[in-house]
Amino acid sequence: MSSNREFFTTRTVAQALSGFRPGRRTPIETIPLSQALRRVTAAPVAAPHPLPGFARSTVDGYAVRAADTYGVSDGLPGYLDVVGAVSMGSSPLVAVRPGTAVAMPTGGAIPAGADAVVMIEYTAEAMPGTIEVVRPVAPGEGIVRADEDAAAGQQIIPAGRPLRPQDLAMLAAAGVIEVPVHARPRVTIFSTGDEVVPPSTGELRPGQVRDATAVALAALVADAGGEPVMAGIVDDDPGALEKALRTALPVSDVLVVSAGSSVGTRDETASAVSALGPPGIWCHGLAIKPGKPTLLAECAAGDEGPGVPVIGLPGNPRSALVVFRLIGMAVVRLVGGCPQAPPQPSARARLSRNVASATGRLDVVQVTLDGAVATPLFGVSALLSVLTAADGYFVIPEEATGLDAGTEVDVILYA
Amino acid sequence: MSSNREFFTTRTVAQALSGFRPGRRTPIETIPLSQALRRVTAAPVAAPHPLPGFARSTVDGYAVRAADTYGVSDGLPGYLDVVGAVSMGSSPLVAVRPGTAVAMPTGGAIPAGADAVVMIEYTAEAMPGTIEVVRPVAPGEGIVRADEDAAAGQQIIPAGRPLRPQDLAMLAAAGVIEVPVHARPRVTIFSTGDEVVPPSTGELRPGQVRDATAVALAALVADAGGEPVMAGIVDDDPGALEKALRTALPVSDVLVVSAGSSVGTRDETASAVSALGPPGIWCHGLAIKPGKPTLLAECAAGDEGPGVPVIGLPGNPRSALVVFRLIGMAVVRLVGGCPQAPPQPSARARLSRNVASATGRLDVVQVTLDGAVATPLFGVSALLSVLTAADGYFVIPEEATGLDAGTEVDVILYA
Repeated sequence: MSSNREFFTTRTVAQALSGFRPGRRTPIETIPLSQALRRVTAAPVAAPHPLPGFARSTVDGYAVRAADTYGVSDGLPGYLDVVGAVSMGSSPLVAVRPGTAVAMPTGGAIPAGADAVVMIEYTAEAMPGTIEVVRPVAPGEGIVRADEDAAAGQQIIPAGRPLRPQDLAMLAAAGVIEVPVHARPRVTIFSTGDEVVPPSTGELRPGQVRDATAVALAALVADAGGEPVMAGIVDDDPGALEKALRTALPVSDVLVVSAGSSVGTRDETASAVSALGPPGIWCHGLAIKPGKPTLLAECAAGDEGPGVPVIGLPGNPRSALVVFRLIGMAVVRLVGGCPQAPPQPSARARLSRNVASATGRLDVVQVTLDGAVATPLFGVSALLSVLTAADGYFVIPEEATGLDAGTEVDVILYA
Repeated sequence: MSSNREFFTTRTVAQALSGFRPGRRTPIETIPLSQALRRVTAAPVAAPHPLPGFARSTVDGYAVRAADTYGVSDGLPGYLDVVGAVSMGSSPLVAVRPGTAVAMPTGGAIPAGADAVVMIEYTAEAMPGTIEVVRPVAPGEGIVRADEDAAAGQQIIPAGRPLRPQDLAMLAAAGVIEVPVHARPRVTIFSTGDEVVPPSTGELRPGQVRDATAVALAALVADAGGEPVMAGIVDDDPGALEKALRTALPVSDVLVVSAGSSVGTRDETASAVSALGPPGIWCHGLAIKPGKPTLLAECAAGDEGPGVPVIGLPGNPRSALVVFRLIGMAVVRLVGGCPQAPPQPSARARLSRNVASATGRLDVVQVTLDGAVATPLFGVSALLSVLTAADGYFVIPEEATGLDAGTEVDVILYA
């Protein structure tokens, strides 16, 4: 990162996503499987033993020697003596010798001597203790090998994977009941602004607004795999934010400041971050609408290695949420050990009307979706109702001057 | 539901999704906003007061009477006396009279008498206490009305919505710090099968397998907004499952049974459900691969109204997870008050090879994705490694006999 660090530079969103890649990673902890959904593996996990561990039948039928079935047909069945039956969850008590068969449930352990299982549909009881077989089977048919799901020592889950339900299934099958994962990044969230009061404030004085941003940022942090820490509203006094950040630094993996929107408070995050010392500010100003007054920085975290990323957000709740969704969530994920963005729900849709845009900035346009028609929602960035009405958003790239009605766009859907 | 109820009928997935719509809903509880992400609103929420509650400036500049700026230009500026400045979070102390202006921060309260805000960029200090204005503004320009985000009493969040981060922001802005939501459905998960042992079992006897399904089902339940209750492994003894279900019924909103895969245990869920009495079995057998031996039913839950849905899953972990993802998650969501499926990440991709399918059943095909190329993963349904290797899946509709290499498919991506 340090090679292209500049102070007070405006960057594009693409530059921020590729260039602002803090080196900090949360420590590794070992947690039970039941708590591991979506947690990010800190190391590859290997199967301690082969899986399933024994050759299993994939069908209901009879374990046989395949050679005993060669050439059989409806017109010329083969006959085999049934010498036993396998019970679920038990070792087979008999072996299959030439001319014999053992009754098999799906999932049962294949007896010694057998190399295939004939489906019950292709057999019939010829007389008590004897079956006729009307289709041949090849060796291996109807059988899962003892190491077919995984060989002993084989990697079953890679490092850096947010664990999915099926990954938990595989780990449980392998008897891995604890997994090494990255700790959830602790993301401390500050609000600033003399006008900002807690959401619990019943009666507002003219000019006051409730803190809408912090609770929504906490939700986005949780969605990104982080653990939000609500640090409340910091006074606009000079030095108050610096002091608050300094206190939070040792116990935070990421710091997020949603700024007041007045001229003075806009630069307060920059001043506070600068006062905390290098590495310092990576960019101050993002070529995006809404969201231009965004600051990305890192603060030294004592001698514990890489610095703590700081994300300074615009004062407007809507701008702050747009920027945090695009930039902040990726930072939280990265610090939590997951370098890739997750797949997002999206839909192709045609614009119901023209949308203007200035070149040189990424425009994030909120839309409602009706079938494959996207209707842009307009309104100043101070309005939250635009975000709550939206089904999703699309972006107009930096180079475009706008999009015509009828243009097909990729709408990212809010889930 | 009762009109088209039949016993032991095979249904299509589409029939199950549209026809198996249990009437049970979880009770309503009121929870704090900080815990409300993705919780489903049980009633519409209205704004108690207008929002933002006062007319606000959307820009840094000067509050003016628009009429005072009509006709001004770079060549012919207008001149206004600056009679004060508004502070963030405070009531304006002065009014704007003809020929005067008040300095405004973005988000500040508009003083009496002003009907527009001129951006600072279109003004200059002419002399101390006087500004020149070089662009006219229309009434309302640079201003958010006191009720522009929401009028008093206006619905800000509909009922039945899984709350998104921006919805929490809107509620916080309105001072709504508690929301009425549906309780998370308690989903009790049973495993059956003599071969099934807990995941913590270190050493397996031949024929034994660890319970891979329960922990993954719990994860899918959580993803669907439910609260999984792990009820462990039920013996294959006749009556044991019936007894276990009977015990769980009064404390469950949904029951899930992943069955043993042997012939005998396949019908055990059906017997147990039938023994518990009406409404009973809705379908036994689903036209899907993998996942055919699926059972959908409802059991009476005493006199507490609608029955408790029961989902009987195939014994193969992979089949069970495929079916629960397609059918079970929708049931959990519905019981939790959310009738719509959430948007899912997906990608268009071309098949790298032919895929066969039998008509009359929906085939669920796991794939890896490399750019826009989807490579089907084959392997018997007993293999979990197919699911852990997969990036997603696509479905082959009931009427198709297969898809050719190069066919474009919609791949649902695992997140």
